[in-house]
Amino acid sequence: MRIVVTNCNTTQEMTEEIVRGARAAAGPGTTVTGLTPAWGPESAEGWLDSYLSAAAVLDALRTYEGPAYDAVVMAGFGEHGREGVRELVDVPVVDITEAAAHLACLLGRRYGVVTTLERSCGQIEDSLELAGVGRNCAAVVGTGLNVLDLGGEARTEAAFLAAAERACAAGAEVLVLGCAGMTGLQQAVGEKLGLPVVDGVGAAVKLAESLVGLGLTTSRAGSFAKPVPKRRVWGRGTPG
Amino acid sequence: MRIVVTNCNTTQEMTEEIVRGARAAAGPGTTVTGLTPAWGPESAEGWLDSYLSAAAVLDALRTYEGPAYDAVVMAGFGEHGREGVRELVDVPVVDITEAAAHLACLLGRRYGVVTTLERSCGQIEDSLELAGVGRNCAAVVGTGLNVLDLGGEARTEAAFLAAAERACAAGAEVLVLGCAGMTGLQQAVGEKLGLPVVDGVGAAVKLAESLVGLGLTTSRAGSFAKPVPKRRVWGRGTPG
Amino acid sequence: MRIVVTNCNTTQEMTEEIVRGARAAAGPGTTVTGLTPAWGPESAEGWLDSYLSAAAVLDALRTYEGPAYDAVVMAGFGEHGREGVRELVDVPVVDITEAAAHLACLLGRRYGVVTTLERSCGQIEDSLELAGVGRNCAAVVGTGLNVLDLGGEARTEAAFLAAAERACAAGAEVLVLGCAGMTGLQQAVGEKLGLPVVDGVGAAVKLAESLVGLGLTTSRAGSFAKPVPKRRVWGRGTPG
Amino acid sequence: MRIVVTNCNTTQEMTEEIVRGARAAAGPGTTVTGLTPAWGPESAEGWLDSYLSAAAVLDALRTYEGPAYDAVVMAGFGEHGREGVRELVDVPVVDITEAAAHLACLLGRRYGVVTTLERSCGQIEDSLELAGVGRNCAAVVGTGLNVLDLGGEARTEAAFLAAAERACAAGAEVLVLGCAGMTGLQQAVGEKLGLPVVDGVGAAVKLAESLVGLGLTTSRAGSFAKPVPKRRVWGRGTPG
Amino acid sequence: MRIVVTNCNTTQEMTEEIVRGARAAAGPGTTVTGLTPAWGPESAEGWLDSYLSAAAVLDALRTYEGPAYDAVVMAGFGEHGREGVRELVDVPVVDITEAAAHLACLLGRRYGVVTTLERSCGQIEDSLELAGVGRNCAAVVGTGLNVLDLGGEARTEAAFLAAAERACAAGAEVLVLGCAGMTGLQQAVGEKLGLPVVDGVGAAVKLAESLVGLGLTTSRAGSFAKPVPKRRVWGRGTPG
Amino acid sequence: MRIVVTNCNTTQEMTEEIVRGARAAAGPGTTVTGLTPAWGPESAEGWLDSYLSAAAVLDALRTYEGPAYDAVVMAGFGEHGREGVRELVDVPVVDITEAAAHLACLLGRRYGVVTTLERSCGQIEDSLELAGVGRNCAAVVGTGLNVLDLGGEARTEAAFLAAAERACAAGAEVLVLGCAGMTGLQQAVGEKLGLPVVDGVGAAVKLAESLVGLGLTTSRAGSFAKPVPKRRVWGRGTPG
Repeated sequence: MRIVVTNCNTTQEMTEEIVRGARAAAGPGTTVTGLTPAWGPESAEGWLDSYLSAAAVLDALRTYEGPAYDAVVMAGFGEHGREGVRELVDVPVVDITEAAAHLACLLGRRYGVVTTLERSCGQIEDSLELAGVGRNCAAVVGTGLNVLDLGGEARTEAAFLAAAERACAAGAEVLVLGCAGMTGLQQAVGEKLGLPVVDGVGAAVKLAESLVGLGLTTSRAGSFAKPVPKRRVWGRGTPG
Repeated sequence: MRIVVTNCNTTQEMTEEIVRGARAAAGPGTTVTGLTPAWGPESAEGWLDSYLSAAAVLDALRTYEGPAYDAVVMAGFGEHGREGVRELVDVPVVDITEAAAHLACLLGRRYGVVTTLERSCGQIEDSLELAGVGRNCAAVVGTGLNVLDLGGEARTEAAFLAAAERACAAGAEVLVLGCAGMTGLQQAVGEKLGLPVVDGVGAAVKLAESLVGLGLTTSRAGSFAKPVPKRRVWGRGTPG
Repeated sequence: MRIVVTNCNTTQEMTEEIVRGARAAAGPGTTVTGLTPAWGPESAEGWLDSYLSAAAVLDALRTYEGPAYDAVVMAGFGEHGREGVRELVDVPVVDITEAAAHLACLLGRRYGVVTTLERSCGQIEDSLELAGVGRNCAAVVGTGLNVLDLGGEARTEAAFLAAAERACAAGAEVLVLGCAGMTGLQQAVGEKLGLPVVDGVGAAVKLAESLVGLGLTTSRAGSFAKPVPKRRVWGRGTPG
Repeated sequence: MRIVVTNCNTTQEMTEEIVRGARAAAGPGTTVTGLTPAWGPESAEGWLDSYLSAAAVLDALRTYEGPAYDAVVMAGFGEHGREGVRELVDVPVVDITEAAAHLACLLGRRYGVVTTLERSCGQIEDSLELAGVGRNCAAVVGTGLNVLDLGGEARTEAAFLAAAERACAAGAEVLVLGCAGMTGLQQAVGEKLGLPVVDGVGAAVKLAESLVGLGLTTSRAGSFAKPVPKRRVWGRGTPG
Repeated sequence: MRIVVTNCNTTQEMTEEIVRGARAAAGPGTTVTGLTPAWGPESAEGWLDSYLSAAAVLDALRTYEGPAYDAVVMAGFGEHGREGVRELVDVPVVDITEAAAHLACLLGRRYGVVTTLERSCGQIEDSLELAGVGRNCAAVVGTGLNVLDLGGEARTEAAFLAAAERACAAGAEVLVLGCAGMTGLQQAVGEKLGLPVVDGVGAAVKLAESLVGLGLTTSRAGSFAKPVPKRRVWGRGTPG
Repeated sequence: MRIVVTNCNTTQEMTEEIVRGARAAAGPGTTVTGLTPAWGPESAEGWLDSYLSAAAVLDALRTYEGPAYDAVVMAGFGEHGREGVRELVDVPVVDITEAAAHLACLLGRRYGVVTTLERSCGQIEDSLELAGVGRNCAAVVGTGLNVLDLGGEARTEAAFLAAAERACAAGAEVLVLGCAGMTGLQQAVGEKLGLPVVDGVGAAVKLAESLVGLGLTTSRAGSFAKPVPKRRVWGRGTPG
């Protein structure tokens, strides 16, 4: 099966990193295709970025011309757009935020999320709440790092471990990597913490494979009906 | 004071209607300026439209070059974007969804929302929940009408009254017009129902005036800090 | 328009202070009339005081013989009675507790309340919950000051700032003055904290003006129907 | 032990009926003393009545001069005041609303309340929520009867059974008599419905006996500290 | 009346201690019979123990051959099984977890639970939530003591007091002994803390007496219908 | 990898049916081993059965002597025990109730569950709530069929479709088969309803494969620590 993994920002290197994370999780029969929006923010940090990203990701999928695919994984942690993509495509759609939470719920009574900037915490809380998995979230905490600063591994790891402690003090028994750019970090921090750490990218790939494997896709009844045909203009082409 | 009222779609006639509604509610010292996004959907019905609209409204405000303004009213009922606009501008931002709910809470123990298509109900419920005013909402019900079909007044009114009955059966004591395009309808249906009916456009104008009058604007602490400076591209200019 | 602002206690000086706060917020066409209950507690601190106050305020409005008014503002933070007043009068009724919270929700993702004695915190939490605006309240914290001790401005301000810190640590991005007697303090503490601070008295005046401006008043359907005519005695030996 | 049972209204016949209900439930060593407020509404139906009643009941207890008592039962279903009485007296205080709900929770997974006028339903819901026992309440439904109309037994019973059906359809497995004036009805309707039916008056008497028997009384830490000494006037012109 | 008090584990000494606690609380006409399961864990600490205990307690009651009884008290704090026992027997069933919480709700606005091992806290939270009394629980905290280590009174008391402080900091105004083996401790720690402390064993005995006294028993409508007759085997090789 | 699928009852035919369902969902490298408890109820319908089943399933896994396995799937819809199994084994544990709900959340905004007897609905609601996925559950409805009556396919399908209609009326956009014995039915009813229908057995197999594939297993921090070594007896007269 083929899974299209959408980056939520325009940074190609990050798409590649996400694709690496997705491939590491994918089963033998799964092909992963990365998709970088042609426009949007270079990183998504806050609501303005997130809404811009949502529209850009929708546009990227709407105009996608590659090989047919069986599922979409949306790789922006806490970012908007998943319901819109569910309306747009006929295949299952899994967002890494909800995916990580779904698996985390299976691994402990309460989970915590460790993300980048403090300003993103509220957005992630909202995303988990609406996905229906907020109840068992003990805390969403920030590391103070920017998305594009995650590269320095030792620094990222140290910041993650410090923030993880706060999440555990709030009751978390399982942790979630709260940014797509953290993918790959789960093993190192998991070992140091002695806790399961869930990477949303890997989680979403497995959930997408699961849905495809079971022949399930988004319901068209009620909320996620196909978009009504109408006139829509997708942006104005001016860099800002 | 000047209030910019943003339509969530590209239909100029609807902006004009909204501006009429806003002006009818505005105090003597208030100037209302309508803003129609240069791109986006011609009407917002569902999540895909809503995310596209959110980005387009943000872009419209980001590139706005008119006279200085004191507040923004976002006139898309149940549409996304308000947190992003709060990050973007330095003046108070009021979304008509939350505005209507805030006032409705003051008028009865439970309120209900009557909107257009059934598919929009969930989106409105989510919007109310995150705005912090979902608790006293008894029901969100649809009339089955499209946004751009609201023109025929008799038909709209009849559909509204039928849907209102369902909301009242669920416990609503106050009703909310669940679409910016319904603005103006409140008096006619309110009289027929013998109930207060809140129009979000008017409600938002009054709340915006209130905040400006009290010298209050969005907190920069935590969630709604200014957007981080970075490279962002706002769309690609291709009609779809 | 005329707004009657009811003090929740019998201390005339406090009514005057509240009226000053209300007038500072009121629009040009608004006349503010203060109303001090003829009986009740000299300050409301705790449930016993609050219930006594509620009955006294109802009695004051029931027997009011001044000029006609267009709205009632109830200026007791966290005090009981608002639903009863909604039954009693035909004009809109706004309680300063809910009013402050409604505006605070528009200014940040989470708000906090700073009040007088710790014993009042629970009562305020209950009041916010029932008003339907409890969800986004991060914390209600006490300063340890009595209502009638608020006069000493430097001391009040210092106590407020210390308590505000605790509210912010709990996630508050906006603060609310949790006592009518604090009215006027919002600017000084807001500047020191770098946060929007909402005064309930001002907030309620603006919301009352908004409702009157929009021609809206309390629903008579369901909860807030007119009191059933019957024999009621308002205090010892005085038939009413 | 002696339990003072406070009627929430001034109707002496109703006090007597409540006392009969309380005595029927009381254990062999328990003496029940009825207390009718010297002022207040002749029946409590709605918030205005309820707040007036709360103050009057507080005043009745404050000025009570009978023999010492070991507990207070507040016999107004859904009426305000219990927290104030907890501040005032040093003995345990049990309100019939919460009492019925506490016992009902032990008898089935969900319970329902059948009360008098529809307008009281919301008030009862609020009372249950704040008492901490709202979660397992499936429904609060009205019979349409006035409090003082409950006398006609056949009519009351028929109205109760019809309303009970609605509560059961909403999931109630146990029912609660939602008015002190219904006391005594539990057996007849319970047999007809084949369900346990809890009378709040009896429930409160048993809970009061339980607390006294265990040597427990209201906590003075936090919310229900003793009222602060100050000037309070209880009704027009009567200093207290 | 006769109350059967079931220990949740196989430790006879603990049954005796529980019976002592129950008798201390019981009214003059009440006979308390202790029941120790013939199998199960020697102490219940965690979910595995709790489920094993639930089945063993059900088996003990199913095969009970002593004198007829009027109520069952289940004396395992936070342990599973109460709904099953409600299906099995025709008399009222009261679990000490819910019992303590029900009475605690009457004594303060928020209560806290102090239990043995930290690992039990989540299980207790779940039990309170499903019993419908979780709302007003401020905290469940552990002392770090094993169930069978509770004997050393000074040590238990010291551990209790230290943990109680954390519960109070979280808002508890009343405390609950979070283990049947703590029964008897309530007076000593209550005096030291200056707070009401509820023992679940005593609370459950009083609630059981209350229900029996009022002629109430579990509803057979809906959830707790009698078990369907079928083949069941209770443990290895023993058909039942 | 090898997944052990535990039936919650002693009916061997049902284990076989479940194993068929599990194998149909399993990936190419997955071996499914069915496990029938040596004791317990022949079908689990209600709490008594469920607690008996939980202990029996724990015993079956505790004494399991087959080949090593990588995950456990617990195939009793709404049945107890999952937290105990998480304590017991070192591999991931997935219960079909939560599994179905986790996948259903990805397929629509609200899901519904269609189960066997009405008496099981409450138990399933509780199970979903504690698993952290109750928020987006619109309804749990019964078909009136016994577990062991599910064989007759036409009758089961008709009953399912009728009940599904009620779930959809309550807002469900996705359905869940609410009994392990319904496995296999998903395709037929899904096509008739035009909705995605999730089978818990298949869902749990995919989630178990996902967790194993990602190298994740239950957290030992906090709730699900290993059982404390102690004396436990598993059923009458059999020390373990």
